[in-house]
Amino acid sequence: MALFVQKYGGTSLANLACIKNVADRIVAAKNAGHQVVVVVSAMSGETDRLIKLAHAVTSNPHPREYDVLISTGEQVAMAILAMELNHRGYKAQSYTGSQLKILTENRHKKAKIKHIDTQLLKQTIDDNAIAIVAGFQGVDEYGNITTFGRGGSDTTAVAIAHSLKADECQIYSDVAGVFTADPRIVAEARRLDHITFEEMIELASSGAKILQKRAVELSGKYKVPLRVLSSFDEGPGTYINFTEMPHMEHPVVSGITYNRNEAKITIVGIPDKPNIAYKIMGPISAANIDVDMIIQNNIGDGKANFTFTVAVEEYEHSLKILDAIVSELGAKQIIGDKNISKLSVVGMGMRTHCGIASVMFNALGLQGINIQFISTSEIKVSVIVAEKHLELGVQSLHSAFGLECATNEGS
Amino acid sequence: MALFVQKYGGTSLANLACIKNVADRIVAAKNAGHQVVVVVSAMSGETDRLIKLAHAVTSNPHPREYDVLISTGEQVAMAILAMELNHRGYKAQSYTGSQLKILTENRHKKAKIKHIDTQLLKQTIDDNAIAIVAGFQGVDEYGNITTFGRGGSDTTAVAIAHSLKADECQIYSDVAGVFTADPRIVAEARRLDHITFEEMIELASSGAKILQKRAVELSGKYKVPLRVLSSFDEGPGTYINFTEMPHMEHPVVSGITYNRNEAKITIVGIPDKPNIAYKIMGPISAANIDVDMIIQNNIGDGKANFTFTVAVEEYEHSLKILDAIVSELGAKQIIGDKNISKLSVVGMGMRTHCGIASVMFNALGLQGINIQFISTSEIKVSVIVAEKHLELGVQSLHSAFGLECATNEGS
Repeated sequence: MALFVQKYGGTSLANLACIKNVADRIVAAKNAGHQVVVVVSAMSGETDRLIKLAHAVTSNPHPREYDVLISTGEQVAMAILAMELNHRGYKAQSYTGSQLKILTENRHKKAKIKHIDTQLLKQTIDDNAIAIVAGFQGVDEYGNITTFGRGGSDTTAVAIAHSLKADECQIYSDVAGVFTADPRIVAEARRLDHITFEEMIELASSGAKILQKRAVELSGKYKVPLRVLSSFDEGPGTYINFTEMPHMEHPVVSGITYNRNEAKITIVGIPDKPNIAYKIMGPISAANIDVDMIIQNNIGDGKANFTFTVAVEEYEHSLKILDAIVSELGAKQIIGDKNISKLSVVGMGMRTHCGIASVMFNALGLQGINIQFISTSEIKVSVIVAEKHLELGVQSLHSAFGLECATNEGS
Repeated sequence: MALFVQKYGGTSLANLACIKNVADRIVAAKNAGHQVVVVVSAMSGETDRLIKLAHAVTSNPHPREYDVLISTGEQVAMAILAMELNHRGYKAQSYTGSQLKILTENRHKKAKIKHIDTQLLKQTIDDNAIAIVAGFQGVDEYGNITTFGRGGSDTTAVAIAHSLKADECQIYSDVAGVFTADPRIVAEARRLDHITFEEMIELASSGAKILQKRAVELSGKYKVPLRVLSSFDEGPGTYINFTEMPHMEHPVVSGITYNRNEAKITIVGIPDKPNIAYKIMGPISAANIDVDMIIQNNIGDGKANFTFTVAVEEYEHSLKILDAIVSELGAKQIIGDKNISKLSVVGMGMRTHCGIASVMFNALGLQGINIQFISTSEIKVSVIVAEKHLELGVQSLHSAFGLECATNEGS
């Protein structure tokens, strides 16, 4: 008998047929003798409907009330799923973040979890019942409803799995696991049976939408056994591995990922002096804007260009902030481009294999794809290219690294 | 400076324009120097949407989960209204039944309030902020979400007004107050400036949908000053009076009301013996079905007919219960009719004026309307007629009692 925390995303709960399918899976685990705690997102479309309602009132809704509103999405989904399970004769009890006392900091829209009181969950499990938990939401010390930001249900699932010392945290969505590349772009893309935690982090931060980066980080911090799988088929999904495998058995490159949701901004001709990066990045981070890649390059005459990328949604806001300080910076001008994409090659094997970057650059060059700029980490190389080159770039990289062959079988 | 509890129903919050209109009223009271606590229903249509969702899962949804689901309707409405007020620069904080600790018995769909913790409300008022409270919902001692049944937001408002010792509880809806008859049926119907508590109780239980009967009873129990008014116009509405007025100044009849939502069931030819009424009503009330009128009449040969009325929604269920015991009762047969309506004449003056019933019967008889059966209380006479006679019946009674003339001015 194992204890599983199963998280079902919005597309897995899109309508009644999907909810019945999810109930089938829960019941199957239960009938196999396992204990199950379920975390749900809102039914797909519901969160967007609620956000639209809020934005009809004002473009800047009061954060406390925004969380009160938005958190109803998961509450509806959990009640419907619990009804379906009770209807089938299985005991099921739903809990909001407030009811479960998922205690967060006193902050709205992006609150972080401080503590989960497991008493009620343990009681429910001991009672042989299925606990259905609203993802994405908690409560602060004053009883205010808080939410965790988009994708926060993954975080709820991992945090609960950790608190309950669950045997596995299973993240169900509409994709069958982690692939060597997006199967919609690369027909030969393969599902990976397992992947290291470090690779998963890099994939999540490189734009692969399969799992929220924060949830992966949390699972890494607490070594929560994690599996990503589809609620629509029977495959084993992809298991996220914390025990490092011997390098020789590990493939050099695990996957190719992309993000078309970035925009780049270049501040041209700033004085090449110490502290200038902080003068630019300070106001940006003060506005709570996440920056992805950063590059600074000398252009002669004691001048430099400073380039960084942000999410497309933050592009206009970032430009506005920089416009206000452009003269103070002593910069010549600010230019930006929303039509870019990031391509990344990720793999633990890079640590011990040289030349990954040059294979990458060569593969893109052969296709005539111009690389605008480059950023590397120990197990990742990312490049920015024109958005129109995204598909071709992913396909050529997948093929250049031979990912269509199953090199990570048996490891 | 007065403290008002204002309750806004679903039609008053139907869409963003309506919500802005409600915000106008709240702001006006606030700007006039008053303190305001607001109770909201769900936006109109929302509760029905949620019920439909539940019934898509099963015809008999788990009551606990039903309350979890249905209570999101008020939560959405309160957040949107609080956003609008904050957007206008007024401090507003929304509270669910759980957050406010509106403690109820541990029962779903029809829970009764046991206690309201006013600390948070008083704190909000002291903070010069507007508290927006989700109507219709509370929390039991175990932290489960409970609801009060249809129209329960009125009950929330009255209970909060009592707990805070508010100067007035204002129930806003889409009608301008209590009328001598439904203005959609009787063009000459007049709004009453005030009405006694007893009359309001009889009107509420006779089908006038302006105020939930339970809320009226609660206001009577605690002498909560109550006003019924429209959120769509500027009239003073109708004030519900607890101090009894001298009879001579009070009109004999205050209003005509009707209910088309009843069905009648007759058990034919039961032995006319003691305890037979209990044998019939026991199983019905055990099934939580509310019975309205009851009549038993001897038909000779030691036999009697037993007739009662229930809400149309409970008709089939009631028939099923009786079918199971018909032979045990020794009854000949059970017959029912869903196409009936109840017409009622209500007025405090009936206590001292005789002949109200005969005026009523005569007025109906002159129109050829057959009276199926009759039930009277100290200040009400109700008759059951065929549903097709409803409009004609109400019109003829309104005219027979001269209600188009303002007889209760100045009292």
